[in-house]
Amino acid sequence: MRLNKPYLLFLASSQSMTDCKTAAGLRDWCRDDVTGQMGLQGCAVDLGLPWYDPAQAFAAGARSLVIGVAPVGGAIPTEWRPALLEAVAAGLDIVSGMHTRLASVPGLAEAAQQRGCRLLDVRHSDRAFAVASGVRRPGRRVLTVGTDCALGKKYTALALTSALRSRGMAATFRATGQTGILIAGAGVAIDAVVADFVAGAAEALSPANDPAHWDVIEGQGALFHPAYAGVTLGLIHGSQPDALVLCHDPSRRCMDGYPDYPIPSLDSAMRQYLTAATVTNPTARFVGISLNTSGLDGGSRRKLVASLRDDFGLAVIDPILDGAGDIAQALAVEFGPGTVQ
Amino acid sequence: MRLNKPYLLFLASSQSMTDCKTAAGLRDWCRDDVTGQMGLQGCAVDLGLPWYDPAQAFAAGARSLVIGVAPVGGAIPTEWRPALLEAVAAGLDIVSGMHTRLASVPGLAEAAQQRGCRLLDVRHSDRAFAVASGVRRPGRRVLTVGTDCALGKKYTALALTSALRSRGMAATFRATGQTGILIAGAGVAIDAVVADFVAGAAEALSPANDPAHWDVIEGQGALFHPAYAGVTLGLIHGSQPDALVLCHDPSRRCMDGYPDYPIPSLDSAMRQYLTAATVTNPTARFVGISLNTSGLDGGSRRKLVASLRDDFGLAVIDPILDGAGDIAQALAVEFGPGTVQ
Repeated sequence: MRLNKPYLLFLASSQSMTDCKTAAGLRDWCRDDVTGQMGLQGCAVDLGLPWYDPAQAFAAGARSLVIGVAPVGGAIPTEWRPALLEAVAAGLDIVSGMHTRLASVPGLAEAAQQRGCRLLDVRHSDRAFAVASGVRRPGRRVLTVGTDCALGKKYTALALTSALRSRGMAATFRATGQTGILIAGAGVAIDAVVADFVAGAAEALSPANDPAHWDVIEGQGALFHPAYAGVTLGLIHGSQPDALVLCHDPSRRCMDGYPDYPIPSLDSAMRQYLTAATVTNPTARFVGISLNTSGLDGGSRRKLVASLRDDFGLAVIDPILDGAGDIAQALAVEFGPGTVQ
Repeated sequence: MRLNKPYLLFLASSQSMTDCKTAAGLRDWCRDDVTGQMGLQGCAVDLGLPWYDPAQAFAAGARSLVIGVAPVGGAIPTEWRPALLEAVAAGLDIVSGMHTRLASVPGLAEAAQQRGCRLLDVRHSDRAFAVASGVRRPGRRVLTVGTDCALGKKYTALALTSALRSRGMAATFRATGQTGILIAGAGVAIDAVVADFVAGAAEALSPANDPAHWDVIEGQGALFHPAYAGVTLGLIHGSQPDALVLCHDPSRRCMDGYPDYPIPSLDSAMRQYLTAATVTNPTARFVGISLNTSGLDGGSRRKLVASLRDDFGLAVIDPILDGAGDIAQALAVEFGPGTVQ
């Protein structure tokens, strides 16, 4: 799935930044790809971007209207319809990460077809993938994995991509979830793929590349998560990662939303991830730990980082505070500085 | 997915038993649900069933025509069209396990709708499942797992269901693949489910039941298979099995079709399966090993069975030679004789 950038971010009638997490993420992670913002009457959020209507945004270069909010339930409210029709009339693609497909908005599909615009539902996967071949391919790959869902795997992968690039190393962020796809402008919503083809989709997402090039793959789920572990395992096998980064939130005791499922120890988590990863890449190894330390004070944070560094002998970062330079350096040291031919 | 039995088995113009494995499996596993067979001109196979055309079969009680052959490529040949239209005209549902959907046969969907018949593509999953809850539920569950694909997981589950029933224990075979669904007349093609919902689909397939009732769940794939492991893991987590049976073919050295992927040792396989299964059922344990010993002579076979019994302290069977009585007995001894209230 390839999106047309730059974006006009649609904030609807959001009342808080929490409502438009997706839009804020795009502003933060791909500011250069964002032309402006657009709200409906009553919108109380301002992302500090130029306000445009669709025609103005198109004139300013925008090529897609991105739904930047996630209404509860995932359905598209009827009061959005005029704005979506206006966007299509102005020549913008519409990009949505919601469960409800854009084509369910009455008249929108016809209007888009007439104007030559696309309706892109990034949460859905309409592309057919092959069954995984398991065949090794050139190019380096690093995958972020976690002790749970939603604790920084995307953020870590993005920070690591930036850190590798600022060392002059060739690196591509490979998105596997809807927000990641919006940021990258491409990717595969891996959890929306038919189960048989998850590993195959992961192979397609990070194809053969220059031997020194790094694909930095956004992880999904967790290997011990009662609902999503199958997605995680297929993504690991298909990615054939050379290197893994373990993402962890030290304040979390149980899987988010699953109070009966405790978070495993980092040691146990790493063992299980390596058992899985070495199936398709026998030399897979951990190169770093990425923490979300926002719940800790400075002293506790420093103590935790130091003790994990000692215990595991790995680079330990909080990507929000530190960036991912230490992990990029570990990759350069262990795998070479990575000059693409 | 619920199918209308009994079946008329469609053999098309098969030249060998291998061509109509599906039909032969149905004859062997649910003979009472099979009314007869139907071939096209040139069909060289005879399953020893009455030959009927669709109208005769309907009069004899049949309610579905089952495609009993698997043409290379999975597409529906145009020369089948008259027979399929004739079946629908006679009032039969059509049941297919092929990749190509029945509705792609020109005119078939309209004819079925007019006659009130259903076109059932068991390989596809049009049902929406919930994300797995991970919540424990009553009822006993045993899952067959394997050191590879296609080495007897379905056969073992069917044999175990029969063996439990002949001990007077309440047991239901839970089908997860197309042939299993045809045999059982119900089930979920688990590898056709969207990845996010695999564990949820497995929860739905083996729902809460009487505490003494056994669901015998057909396993899929293998946890160390480069393409299908994600399906396997989701099925394990959602099934929350109390007991596991490891299926193994001692003659196989590599994953079928994946020469670079060796079969793990039984010990390593069991450890990995238990790590996975204990996530959602901390007391999960192995109760037996099911072998395909067709490649061994009598002496080698006896030696292998005896040594595995010693090494693992488990019931060891070849279900084709022995049935699964020893594993049914192990379940009765370890979990109680299982009188449903």
